Order: sequence, then structure tokens, then C-alpha cells
Amino acid sequence: MRMYDLIVKKRNGGAVSRDELEYMIGESTQDRIPDYQMSAMMMAIYFRGMTEEETLNLTMAMAHSGEILDLSGIRGIKVDKHSTGGVGDKTSLALIPMVSACGIPVAKMSGRGLGHTGGTIDKLESFPGFSTGISTEQFTRQVNRIGIAIMGQTKDLAPADKKIYALRDVTATVDNMSLIASSIMSKKLAAGADAIVLDVKTGSGAFMKKEEDAFALAEEMVRIGNGAGRRTRAVISDMDQPLGRAVGNALEVKEAIDTLQGNGPEDFVELCMTLGSQMLICGGAAGDEKQARSMLENVIADGSALRRLAEFVEAQGGDASAVWDPQLLPQAQETWQILSPAEGYVSHIACDEIGICSLILGGGRETKDSCIDLSVGFVLQKKTGDAVQKGDILAVMHGSDAQKMEQAQKRFLKAYQFSDHAPAKLPFIRGIIS
Amino acid sequence: MRMYDLIVKKRNGGAVSRDELEYMIGESTQDRIPDYQMSAMMMAIYFRGMTEEETLNLTMAMAHSGEILDLSGIRGIKVDKHSTGGVGDKTSLALIPMVSACGIPVAKMSGRGLGHTGGTIDKLESFPGFSTGISTEQFTRQVNRIGIAIMGQTKDLAPADKKIYALRDVTATVDNMSLIASSIMSKKLAAGADAIVLDVKTGSGAFMKKEEDAFALAEEMVRIGNGAGRRTRAVISDMDQPLGRAVGNALEVKEAIDTLQGNGPEDFVELCMTLGSQMLICGGAAGDEKQARSMLENVIADGSALRRLAEFVEAQGGDASAVWDPQLLPQAQETWQILSPAEGYVSHIACDEIGICSLILGGGRETKDSCIDLSVGFVLQKKTGDAVQKGDILAVMHGSDAQKMEQAQKRFLKAYQFSDHAPAKLPFIRGIIS
Repeated sequence: MRMYDLIVKKRNGGAVSRDELEYMIGESTQDRIPDYQMSAMMMAIYFRGMTEEETLNLTMAMAHSGEILDLSGIRGIKVDKHSTGGVGDKTSLALIPMVSACGIPVAKMSGRGLGHTGGTIDKLESFPGFSTGISTEQFTRQVNRIGIAIMGQTKDLAPADKKIYALRDVTATVDNMSLIASSIMSKKLAAGADAIVLDVKTGSGAFMKKEEDAFALAEEMVRIGNGAGRRTRAVISDMDQPLGRAVGNALEVKEAIDTLQGNGPEDFVELCMTLGSQMLICGGAAGDEKQARSMLENVIADGSALRRLAEFVEAQGGDASAVWDPQLLPQAQETWQILSPAEGYVSHIACDEIGICSLILGGGRETKDSCIDLSVGFVLQKKTGDAVQKGDILAVMHGSDAQKMEQAQKRFLKAYQFSDHAPAKLPFIRGIIS
Repeated sequence: MRMYDLIVKKRNGGAVSRDELEYMIGESTQDRIPDYQMSAMMMAIYFRGMTEEETLNLTMAMAHSGEILDLSGIRGIKVDKHSTGGVGDKTSLALIPMVSACGIPVAKMSGRGLGHTGGTIDKLESFPGFSTGISTEQFTRQVNRIGIAIMGQTKDLAPADKKIYALRDVTATVDNMSLIASSIMSKKLAAGADAIVLDVKTGSGAFMKKEEDAFALAEEMVRIGNGAGRRTRAVISDMDQPLGRAVGNALEVKEAIDTLQGNGPEDFVELCMTLGSQMLICGGAAGDEKQARSMLENVIADGSALRRLAEFVEAQGGDASAVWDPQLLPQAQETWQILSPAEGYVSHIACDEIGICSLILGGGRETKDSCIDLSVGFVLQKKTGDAVQKGDILAVMHGSDAQKMEQAQKRFLKAYQFSDHAPAKLPFIRGIIS
């Protein structure tokens, strides 16, 4: 078999077989396919696309290019959750204690963020001492004991995807739905869960700006997951403005705690309820959405979800005091009020710009080695559709460096648009694919 | 400027500007663009194509990536000729003495062949002592003195093309008309002639199997040449069977000598007359085709073209005795007659297969370092359309190794197809583009 012939086949619009894709991924992982052939192949795929079968086979091959996490030592149906990412996306922080408290074992691999805000692990490090550097054995034991654990992503998870993604990133071959779907799903499959619930975001703060693209990606990923024998569902949700009100690591942790106390912002609560229901259904803990929602409401009302968060933080070496007293979370030195320059309605918020403002304050990572300031960020008081008077507080900015705050404030104000009539309101949950 | 952005532009169907192409080629020549980006770009061009302007700009940038041969020291209008290659293509051997004898200065760069038969230089080495290793100064002086010289291709001619072609060759991005045209023309432009006559072959022995592709390539090259300010014409000629009767280096030299003596095979004479006329017209030596043909016929009839060949061989250190006594050319140890297994008409000859048979005998180069046996090859007695009886001689095979000859004979016989009625006859010259 020769890589050259596979490129010709794809270039000419043919379908590459399972054997051929396994050869391609196997050889690539062993550094036996030169990058210039792989990038030509990726560009050919960009133009020709892949069939459902090819996409599944590519995903499986990438998933098997490294270690497949063995979760068989964990009792019950393991349900994983993945978000395509956005601004203010603290979903896991509230959601996983909720579903864990409902009896679904949560055995999650998570990464650090490279972007506007930190990832789930960064956020959890707002609890002093919290660590994800645990062995697979500890991980398994912890899930069996308290029903929840998070592990840092091992290097060896789908290494072929890592390598190919890096190449796609510099050769303008990222934007293909099948390739995006197989990249995400190869890591999810390798992470070993029995079922997968995907949170696919759409809008100005999402990777998929257009709703139709978000649906297409969701469908592709659900097809792959089910094709690989994992029960898979996807929720398409709005990311045209930041999720909830908090943007920034510790601020988001506080919002997750508020939510587990029953005081979450409407959109974020709705997202946790929708994703949580799907997770309970996929995990066999609930028969339908009504039952699932009622279970999720109960674990908030009786405090068991919040207690689960505290147990989880402590089990991984963290100081959980802040769960009970959020004042103990990292605090920025200064808070500034950002005031509305206009009156009328907030007609649009350039969501990715709010993310960049948080990055400017120091809340995100520009390179892999950047240090994150967990305390900084924004708490939005006004969101899209809200009526405003001139001088109303749009948001409270938390920061520690006046220069950066000046810069962030300027940019923040440009991200808000106003109009004299209320904008049309789209539903927050756009659809569910199963 | 970033290569990444140029890839995105082309991938999205945009046109890359002259500045951008100059940047791309300049950086690539300096090894500052990674191969994986260039191959992704080539695949994007494969799918998106290039405008006429882009193709011209790319060609010019590649032509200027190295040395441009300075022929200004040579008096007169220098006309270059290029063939896309085929089996039995000894055209330059007869054609350049003919046009030189008509007063067109011939200052030609030529390469060795990598393929079924040798290139023009290999064939000329049938004259013992002949060498193309001459300096540019010697080259210029020789053209001014006797009207004809051939130089080996310098390494530095369009180095960007060399590098990119090597990459295209292993990434399945050769087959794009604009890229093929710009690759050929970048070298022709760098070789410095004032006018260029292209011999574009079509058929089973040609790079362009389909006539429509040959026309498309010819049009693209003529457009580039004229766009670059060089008077450029293309002749599209048949390569669905070997050109003339001789295939193999010394055998082809003999056929060229025969032709210069007025005894050439009909198709080959027609090709020399057609290409020669275009060269005389482009070079300003003749006003129209009628005048040109009559001039070319004269230099054959009066022996001046043959004398010009001898002067040329001697000027470059060769022993020209064989021009007057072709028996002195390298001779194979054995000649076998290949007999017709059928009666009727030769309906088709798989032309590239005849080339491979010559390669099997040792007449071509499998790798850059292979040694060529100049004496081996075939002289065809029957060509497409000829009536045959069983046992008629199809060809005489010249070889030195019985095992190789057995193998070549078997394959040769499979290349001939027979039918009981004469096949439709297509014109040998398919068209002229100017």
C-alpha cells in the first residue's frame, strides 16, 4: 500500500477503505508518512469530503492510534460529555456533580484551555490544592467510591489526531465537517466512556458560527459515536453571547456553585438541565426527559449536587471551603463597573470579543506555557434583549492591572450593540440530535 | 505575507496576486516554506485551478527563481523548440540542423531523458566524443560561428520549478494543466530564447493521452509564452504510435541522418517540416508556411542541413564520421525479426509499451544513474493502418542480451493489435496554436 495511491483515490473522488485508512493512520503515527503527503491528503478531503463510512473508519483508526482508556473497572454506564467550547462555558463544573448525584458515574478526561478562558481543569484549580495528576487506578477507585473523578488528558490519547490536527492547522485544512467530527470523536472514543453527550455550540462565540454548520457537525459526531457502538446524543445550544453571566475562571466557578444552590442564570440552568437529562437517559438512570429533569431538580433542591462537588474537590486534594464560602475563591484586586453608553436594548454581543477581553485581563492562555490569572473576568449584568438606560451597569470587570483593564474595557464596549427596539429572541436550545 | 493565507485564498477559490506568487516562489526557493504547506497549496490549485494571470505570474516567478540564460551575445532571433516527449522522438536531431541551415540561430539547452529512451543529449552521444559540457561563453561563440550549439541543462535553471515538481510528483498534484504548463514554460523562459515552438504530443505514447488535453496544454503554454513577451506557437502531433520507424538512441540518430538525406519516414518528415516552418516564421526567416517549407526542402536537397549536423557534432568534440557512414554508429550484437502472428491490418500500437520494450533492452534510464545502451531498440516495418500477412516482419529488434530480447519480444507482440479492416486514419498533425 502506498500513501500516494490513497491521495490519488481521494483526489479523484473515490472512497478510501478501512484498511487503507488504518494503514494511513498507523504509518503516520510511526512517522512513516511525510507531512507533505498528509497535508495533500487533507486538502483532497477538504474538497472531496468523506463518506459516513470513511469518517467512522478514520475516527476509529485515530482513536486506536494510542491508548484506549479502560474504564471497565468502574461500575455502571459511564457517560462522557463534551463541549465544542465557547465563552463562559463552565458547564462541566455544575453538570457533572448533578449527574453524579443522580447516580451516573462520571469518569472524565479533561484538558486545559488554549484560548480566551481556561479549561475545566484550570477553573477547578480555583480550589487550592486541586490536582488532576492522578493515576488510572486512583481515578477508577475514586469514581467507584464517590461517583466522580477528573483526570488530565494523557499524552497518548489519539496521538494520530494530535499530529494531523497540528498539520491541518497550518495548511488551511481544518474546515471540513468530517475531519472536525473525527478529530473530536477520536479523543472521546479513546477516553473510554459507554455513552457520549455532546454540547455543540453555535453563534459568534462558537467554532461553528452558523446554526446549520452546528447541526451538520452534531449529526456527523452522533453518527460516528453510534457507529462506534457508543450511545451518542448532541445538544445544539446558543453561543451568540456568553453563557450565563460570568466569564473568567474563578467567577465561573462561583456561578457554577450558585447554580448548584438553585440560583443559576436562566440559560445556564436550562443547558445543565438539557444536557443532564440526556446524560441520565443515555446512562439508563432515567426513562425520559421529564423524569430526568425532576431527578436533576431534586439533587439541587436537596443540596446533594453541591455536596458532590465538595467531595470531588476534596478527593482530588483541593480545599473545598470555597464551595460553602465562594468569597474564598481567588479575588481580583479591582472591580470596575462598565456603564452603558446608550439607551434602548442590547441588540447583539460579539461573544468572541468578550472572550478576548477576558484574555486581555489575563484570564486565558495565549501560548501553551502562559500563566492564567484565575481571578479576572467579567460578570455581565445586561445580555442580549435586555433594556438599558444610559449609565446602567453592563458588566462588572474584575482585574488587577489598570492598563489591561483600560484596554479590555474599550474593547468590551465595542462588543455591545444597541438598538431602539428589542431584538428577535431565538430559543437557547436549538435542537437535540440522537 | 503568510503562506497560510495564500492557501486559504486559493482554497476558497480566490486568485493569488503577482506579489503573493512572487513571495511564495521566492520563499520556497530559500527553503522558507515547509513542504506540507506547498503541497496543500498545490492540491488546492489542483481543485480550484488558476486564472491565466495567475498562471503567467507563477511561471514568471519560477523562471526568475534562478539564472536566466543571457543569449544577447548571439546575433539574430533565437528560436527554441520543446517537445512534451514520446517514443521515437528524435525530432531535434533532424530539425535543428535544418532550421540552422536556413539561418535561424539555434542555441538550445537540452536534458538527458529519464524514461523509455534517452534524451537528445544521450542520442547525440552516439557520436564518440560529443559533449554538452561547454561554458556559456563557448556556447555563444559557437552559435555565432556555425549557427548551432547544445548545452546541458544547468542546475540553476528555474530551481523553484524543480523543487515544486518533485513535491507534486509524490503528492498527486501533477495533473493540472496550468501547473504542467507553468512548469514547462518556466524552464523555457529561463533558457532565454526570443521565440518558442512547442511540439505537444497526444495519444497512447504521450503525457497527454487525450487530444483535448493536448490542445488545452498547448493553448495554456502559448498563452504563457506570448504573455511573457516571447513569440510562441504550438504544434499538436500524433503520438498514438512511435514517431517514424526507429525507437532507440543510435537507431534514431540513423533515422535523423536518413531524413536529412531526404529519406525520412513520412510522419517524421511532416513533423520536421511543420515545426521547422513555425520556427522559421517565428524567427523571421520566412514570411509564410509555403516559403518556409520550400527553404527547408532546399537545405535537405542541397545537403546543407546534413553538413550542418556534421559541423555541429565536430564543434562539440564529436566524431562526425557516422554522419557520412551511419554504419559507424553503435551497433547491437544481435538483430531479431519480430513476425506478425496475425493477418489483416495493424489496428493499434500501444505506443508507451514499445517505449517500455526499448527500456527492457537497455535503451532507457530507470533511475538517474542508469547507464544507457545506445545501440539497442526497434525499427518498425509495420505501423498502424498497414496491411500484414502472417509471418510478415513487424519490426527488427536490436539487442545484446538474449534474455532481455525474449522478454521485450513478448511484450512487443502484445502491444500490436490487429483487425480485419483498415482502421480510420487520423491526420498526423492535429493542429497549430499561435
